[in-house]
Amino acid sequence: MTSMMRREIAEQPEALRATLRALLPRRDEVRALGGSARQVLFIARGTSDNAAVYGRYLLEAYAGRPAALAAPSVATVYRRRMDLDGVLAVALSQSGRTEEIVETLAWAKDCGARTVAITNGGPESPLAQAADLALCTEAGEEKAVPATKTYTTQLAALAVLALALGAEVDAADLERAPDAVAALLDDPGDLDAVVDGLAGVAGAVVSGRGMAFSTALELALKLKEACYLHAMGLSYADLLHGPIAVVDSGTPAILVAAGSGPTLPGTVALAERVRSAGAAAYGVGGDEALAAACTARLNGPDLPEWVAPIGLIVPGQLVTEALARRLGIDPDSPRGLRKVTQTD
Amino acid sequence: MTSMMRREIAEQPEALRATLRALLPRRDEVRALGGSARQVLFIARGTSDNAAVYGRYLLEAYAGRPAALAAPSVATVYRRRMDLDGVLAVALSQSGRTEEIVETLAWAKDCGARTVAITNGGPESPLAQAADLALCTEAGEEKAVPATKTYTTQLAALAVLALALGAEVDAADLERAPDAVAALLDDPGDLDAVVDGLAGVAGAVVSGRGMAFSTALELALKLKEACYLHAMGLSYADLLHGPIAVVDSGTPAILVAAGSGPTLPGTVALAERVRSAGAAAYGVGGDEALAAACTARLNGPDLPEWVAPIGLIVPGQLVTEALARRLGIDPDSPRGLRKVTQTD
Repeated sequence: MTSMMRREIAEQPEALRATLRALLPRRDEVRALGGSARQVLFIARGTSDNAAVYGRYLLEAYAGRPAALAAPSVATVYRRRMDLDGVLAVALSQSGRTEEIVETLAWAKDCGARTVAITNGGPESPLAQAADLALCTEAGEEKAVPATKTYTTQLAALAVLALALGAEVDAADLERAPDAVAALLDDPGDLDAVVDGLAGVAGAVVSGRGMAFSTALELALKLKEACYLHAMGLSYADLLHGPIAVVDSGTPAILVAAGSGPTLPGTVALAERVRSAGAAAYGVGGDEALAAACTARLNGPDLPEWVAPIGLIVPGQLVTEALARRLGIDPDSPRGLRKVTQTD
Repeated sequence: MTSMMRREIAEQPEALRATLRALLPRRDEVRALGGSARQVLFIARGTSDNAAVYGRYLLEAYAGRPAALAAPSVATVYRRRMDLDGVLAVALSQSGRTEEIVETLAWAKDCGARTVAITNGGPESPLAQAADLALCTEAGEEKAVPATKTYTTQLAALAVLALALGAEVDAADLERAPDAVAALLDDPGDLDAVVDGLAGVAGAVVSGRGMAFSTALELALKLKEACYLHAMGLSYADLLHGPIAVVDSGTPAILVAAGSGPTLPGTVALAERVRSAGAAAYGVGGDEALAAACTARLNGPDLPEWVAPIGLIVPGQLVTEALARRLGIDPDSPRGLRKVTQTD
């Protein structure tokens, strides 16, 4: 049995190649529009919001450029104007048709911001039309409700944005991402052990820090929406401020880290703490030390930390799809959800 | 049996009065330091981070001043400098001794920001010493691990900050908050029904929007740390983007709203959607329409929306304390936690 979601997961290397072919040549345009911005403000919801978290850490940690996530309700519910002169507002919506996001981007422009759209909805979508510049991802149509290829291509578009805005990284790493994802699809690691472990629990904590935080949030969202698991996505620093209490023999932790970078040692230490509390720890990515500290591990991509999130989510997508089927859920259409969510 | 947590919950009216007496006269100092800031950047973790979410919405929605939450790891793990000229950095730590927060505030100052500390640790605490200006809350010593009176007094300090920075609200509403909290302690609503309902479930969604979002996050944290409940705190807009799928007969929703304001109608509609999915909906605050749409309701404070969060968390604190005892947990010292959390 092959779900649509599983097919779309497999399409990611090609979707990423097509997206990078389209967007890498547009760095100069992005620089001309946003190079002088003193801050980047992301506008997004759901999976796109998790992508924005990646963009935020990438811009701050690797480009030294302040970035933040907007609270759309300030625009759409409270209807409050603010001075956004000198701000580059970047709105993300897979469909390009979520009214709340289109309206918030229009509000940002009205408040003085320059505006970018990142969407898979094409240049004619309302979001692309509302922006000064549109970076259209080339994921093709996505039919399964849980977003996969539209998410990883958003990350690729954000990596292009960061390159344009001065991130001190090597663009060649980004160009290797499609192949690294293909390698993970061939060898995702202990998939069966993780699916077995999650099939018997009601909830799990999903944690990562810095560049891997976005992956933890996105995997927690996937497990909630497609497997109805009580999955709590947290930075590992926040986890230690209270929520660590929930971890026990019935509540495992899933710990995400790139194969290198400054948050890896803390992730290994957290895995040890989780297991000493009697809980299972499932690693995603990391190094041999993380594998040794964990009950089971999913492989991460052979990519440096700044671009690793494009691959880090992939084994988590595979776990989500397999776990949903194991639990008797159709991963393509979870209860209560539609492909395009309208919020006000 | 009376826990320390229960006694500290009851001390909140007096803690709030003392804090407002100390801080309301300092509005001019805050205005002199931060009045010209183009943005406020909050630095916090855990419960203090939830207070910062209140500060963020209050400044944006009621003062039209852009605000954001810092990612401390950019300072402490990635050690990346950014240009924070024109930024007012506001760090919150109950103890004033969390090294990550002290270090991040020092980093912000080094990057050009003006700095404020909000702490219950007193003027000699490391955080107060690191800041240009310290707003010390007067909650007295807090002994139970789950923060209660140190949280609501942080909210009061943030309300004073917002008044100083031009929030278009009436300070008299804030001065009424201690009495409104006292009234809630006398009549918190259907406490037993909510405790009964939560005693039999593994997880719950806690949701609010705009000004009430901070309360939803804080109540979810309390239920995780003191009751080991898989409590997922979400904006209701984000809830509709996927996590709504987890709500079912075994996963109720707790929905928070002030008694008035623009997010209330959406909260009532969400309660109706939750119940149509076969789940229980527990209301906190809101109006008669929310009460009618919910399975049971906890009362909210008789305060306008901008200052309601100071009271909205109180019935949730009472539920947390009672539910912990019902589950055989000592609410004063949950497993795996200490009063001061050190993260790097």
